Amino acid sequence: MANIAFIGLGNMGGPMALNLIKAGHEVRVYDLAPAALVAAKAGGASVAETPAAAVEGVEFVVSMLPASQHVEGLYLGGNGLLGAIRPGSLVIDCSTIAPAASRKVAQAAKALGISFIDAPVSGGTAGAAAGTLSFIVGGAAELLERARPLLGAMGKNIFHAGDNGAGQVAKICNNMLLAIHMAGSAEALALGVANGLDPSVLSDIMVKSSGRNWSLELYNPWPGVMDKVPAAHGYAGGFGSALMLKDLGLAAEASAASGSAVPLGELARALYQRHCQSEGALDFSSIVNLYRKKD
Amino acid sequence: MANIAFIGLGNMGGPMALNLIKAGHEVRVYDLAPAALVAAKAGGASVAETPAAAVEGVEFVVSMLPASQHVEGLYLGGNGLLGAIRPGSLVIDCSTIAPAASRKVAQAAKALGISFIDAPVSGGTAGAAAGTLSFIVGGAAELLERARPLLGAMGKNIFHAGDNGAGQVAKICNNMLLAIHMAGSAEALALGVANGLDPSVLSDIMVKSSGRNWSLELYNPWPGVMDKVPAAHGYAGGFGSALMLKDLGLAAEASAASGSAVPLGELARALYQRHCQSEGALDFSSIVNLYRKKD
Amino acid sequence: MANIAFIGLGNMGGPMALNLIKAGHEVRVYDLAPAALVAAKAGGASVAETPAAAVEGVEFVVSMLPASQHVEGLYLGGNGLLGAIRPGSLVIDCSTIAPAASRKVAQAAKALGISFIDAPVSGGTAGAAAGTLSFIVGGAAELLERARPLLGAMGKNIFHAGDNGAGQVAKICNNMLLAIHMAGSAEALALGVANGLDPSVLSDIMVKSSGRNWSLELYNPWPGVMDKVPAAHGYAGGFGSALMLKDLGLAAEASAASGSAVPLGELARALYQRHCQSEGALDFSSIVNLYRKKD
Amino acid sequence: MANIAFIGLGNMGGPMALNLIKAGHEVRVYDLAPAALVAAKAGGASVAETPAAAVEGVEFVVSMLPASQHVEGLYLGGNGLLGAIRPGSLVIDCSTIAPAASRKVAQAAKALGISFIDAPVSGGTAGAAAGTLSFIVGGAAELLERARPLLGAMGKNIFHAGDNGAGQVAKICNNMLLAIHMAGSAEALALGVANGLDPSVLSDIMVKSSGRNWSLELYNPWPGVMDKVPAAHGYAGGFGSALMLKDLGLAAEASAASGSAVPLGELARALYQRHCQSEGALDFSSIVNLYRKKD
Repeated sequence: MANIAFIGLGNMGGPMALNLIKAGHEVRVYDLAPAALVAAKAGGASVAETPAAAVEGVEFVVSMLPASQHVEGLYLGGNGLLGAIRPGSLVIDCSTIAPAASRKVAQAAKALGISFIDAPVSGGTAGAAAGTLSFIVGGAAELLERARPLLGAMGKNIFHAGDNGAGQVAKICNNMLLAIHMAGSAEALALGVANGLDPSVLSDIMVKSSGRNWSLELYNPWPGVMDKVPAAHGYAGGFGSALMLKDLGLAAEASAASGSAVPLGELARALYQRHCQSEGALDFSSIVNLYRKKD
Repeated sequence: MANIAFIGLGNMGGPMALNLIKAGHEVRVYDLAPAALVAAKAGGASVAETPAAAVEGVEFVVSMLPASQHVEGLYLGGNGLLGAIRPGSLVIDCSTIAPAASRKVAQAAKALGISFIDAPVSGGTAGAAAGTLSFIVGGAAELLERARPLLGAMGKNIFHAGDNGAGQVAKICNNMLLAIHMAGSAEALALGVANGLDPSVLSDIMVKSSGRNWSLELYNPWPGVMDKVPAAHGYAGGFGSALMLKDLGLAAEASAASGSAVPLGELARALYQRHCQSEGALDFSSIVNLYRKKD
Repeated sequence: MANIAFIGLGNMGGPMALNLIKAGHEVRVYDLAPAALVAAKAGGASVAETPAAAVEGVEFVVSMLPASQHVEGLYLGGNGLLGAIRPGSLVIDCSTIAPAASRKVAQAAKALGISFIDAPVSGGTAGAAAGTLSFIVGGAAELLERARPLLGAMGKNIFHAGDNGAGQVAKICNNMLLAIHMAGSAEALALGVANGLDPSVLSDIMVKSSGRNWSLELYNPWPGVMDKVPAAHGYAGGFGSALMLKDLGLAAEASAASGSAVPLGELARALYQRHCQSEGALDFSSIVNLYRKKD
Repeated sequence: MANIAFIGLGNMGGPMALNLIKAGHEVRVYDLAPAALVAAKAGGASVAETPAAAVEGVEFVVSMLPASQHVEGLYLGGNGLLGAIRPGSLVIDCSTIAPAASRKVAQAAKALGISFIDAPVSGGTAGAAAGTLSFIVGGAAELLERARPLLGAMGKNIFHAGDNGAGQVAKICNNMLLAIHMAGSAEALALGVANGLDPSVLSDIMVKSSGRNWSLELYNPWPGVMDKVPAAHGYAGGFGSALMLKDLGLAAEASAASGSAVPLGELARALYQRHCQSEGALDFSSIVNLYRKKD
């Protein structure tokens, strides 16, 4: 069993750390929020007072933070955590951040003899709790193998996207495509309903035809079509629209960085931006509210 | 076995008529193109010199025409074909046209005691030849049952979308969504490749994640990722970009008719419009060429 | 002074007919709405009971109708008005319709020895009342000269766009561009205000810089920036959003007919479509409400 | 006359510094490129070997740098230039950068007793050479007054947008709107031409109608319509498409920072992104090439 430092115990990180403990690992945790530390301690974690204390002497560091600046802020700079991590250790950053930021930290780590992979996740808070997340990994194949026992304790599918940063790129591409087909499915359903169709009948036809996509199959945005999806209970829970907007922002950054044109991605971003002015806290399938006529 | 008139023997109609003959039906055909009649005759059809001669005395009329004006032009007006069809017959129009045009013909038919359903298809020329088309039917349920033996001879899946015109609406919604996720998949792949990812690896990740959709699963637009798709052989064959553009035009019409906003559908239409300026004859997955950087 | 038949006395046609009368012309009018006829009669028009009676023996026919189907329905077909117009007369159609529809009527007129020009207007109901409309004319130059005295009685600027249909094309292009810079101006103002700027200060800067456009200069959409514009009185009056949406529909048709891509025009149409779900009766500058944050 | 340090002698900064010298000011310059220093020296500047040497003892510092990171990199951090500037001096940053970055530097300056305004420019290299730039200033009104003699030596119009950062916001809004009406004008012209109109006739009609905007009036993108614009000589010179793309990126950032939706701005960005894949070095009016049909 491994000695692991876990930094960042939010809605995702908290349950992920607990799954590592359940799998028998020694986990030392750090978070800015005292309540998160209390919960982790109750779950069997040892609690560190600083990030540096958390990483002292461990073989693995796992981090789960909100955005690029938090990851850069944690690891880099004069007092950056990389200085406190034992050379030879492996850092697994599960945050979804800009590929360039991830590569920057990986490079700084390498210069100190520390290994680093990016391993952003999909699957949401439910997947984090159930240990069924998907990890999309960027970094050398042998590092992925070293990380596999830990990732396997927290998730089910593990993809190898390529070198450092590639996990982030693949995650961003996937989520941009998800936003496009979710909004597209909402748009097609609203068009059909406005022209007299029943949303369940239309959903059934499209899911068996070439319109098929993940949003229609597993996550239908129209209320009353599916049970057990956010649309069935007022779009509570799930994957927040504001988080999708964040990922679409990363896609825009990646497009600018590479000179790629992403017109549908940009338009999806404008739609989510508009939607988030009033309903950012609702699940991202609530984008359908932008299309449904007011009664 | 039924007596059937079949009007319109194009790339789709030709093989559909042959499949009716193979199933044992008596089929009398009409088309403006002599070559199409020769082929149908070789396949066992009897050939009529006029549409009116084709429909004389039959129980079923099947039509497969390019656009609204052809269907209205055929059936309506002073010399319209409805005047020559025996009351009590069932007309099955398989053309993809505006729902309003379809409803107009259905109403005129009804006034003359003729039944009418819209039954647009998906599945392309390959599906037409193999008899594996999908039919999306608008019209009364009992008319669908009457039509089922004929539809079953030409296709595999038969969907009932609702009343007259509903088949057209559902087809249009489906194809708009298809255009959105095809272009969206092309966009996501191009973004990933421009940021260093392998298109096969990225496709594999997204198809197993929430980005999954029909385009990625069965019809990957990036050359080299899949065999046996248009992308594997220069986008020849398949479903032409110009035909997709036509369907996106019908979606725009339907959105205007119902006061629905379809921003992603409109943008997809602009993208296909642009693409068709040079590559309208290529399969619709060639939209990826709009995204790939020039070498 | 000329003998003129005027068909269509709506918000635009009514005052236009009155200005012809004021200029000393003999005007015989027809409209479906009795109230419109009463008003015209009070203004000095003679009233006809049918379109055919209106055009009997006149040298000029002016029409001002809502859409393509009304113009085609009026002039064409078995009982079409062209059959009642004296050969050698000049028809001036001021309706904004599809260029193809306009050309179709022009051609049918020509076959009967009747001259026809399209002369869609801009300037709104205020311009119609004040006699300051702009006319954008399609048709032969000598026909424009024949029409000039009538056009000059109803408007100020007369443009010659080209042959038949060209007036419609130019009008459509102009209004598409107007929708784009109106929505663009609204978008830029909302972005500035959300980032702390005063809308009047920002408007002043942009109108004196390269952002300058007609919407900012004469028709600022942000309430409180200008007097005497629709934004100053709740967007009442002016040029209705639903009418702009109609023109954007004509632009979409023209783009499809010519294989042109109009991505910004299509997006503007989707924005106006959305806007018209709740505020179609308000002036088109109310599109700014789509951008302003809810309080 | 004032003692001025000028940092950044690129295509814009070089001629701006010369205009300060011509107005009688003492100007000490710094740039990374030796050739730029040689040219400035020939024009009467004294040359400093480091930024710190340039600012030593001066009352004013003017900077003109490419992007946020350069401005932050120059002024902030352990060895940042702010540490070398005499308290009481006024820094005038003419770079176009993110408002947040500008405010950050302004705040750091204030903490050291140094005044700071943002004063991004419009007018291009021609305006820089001719001394006819426009300055859009963010910062306290009294600081603008202190800067006015310098700004007046380099430009003609001086706008006060608001507090620190407001100059950047206004510049970004203006340029987003400029991109929208430039691309919109290109789109309208291409639509008209594809439907048979002459681009000069259509331009003339729209510039005298409600389609009017700066792009059509002063900078027509269609070749052959105007002399002395980039379209008249292969889109050389002018304001590069890649620079417009940079400004649209700042608009996207500002929209994300403030939760504003800018759908037309995002689409314009995607269009320029696509355009820059092949023609980023051409003037931004060359976006018309994206719309013109290939011969």
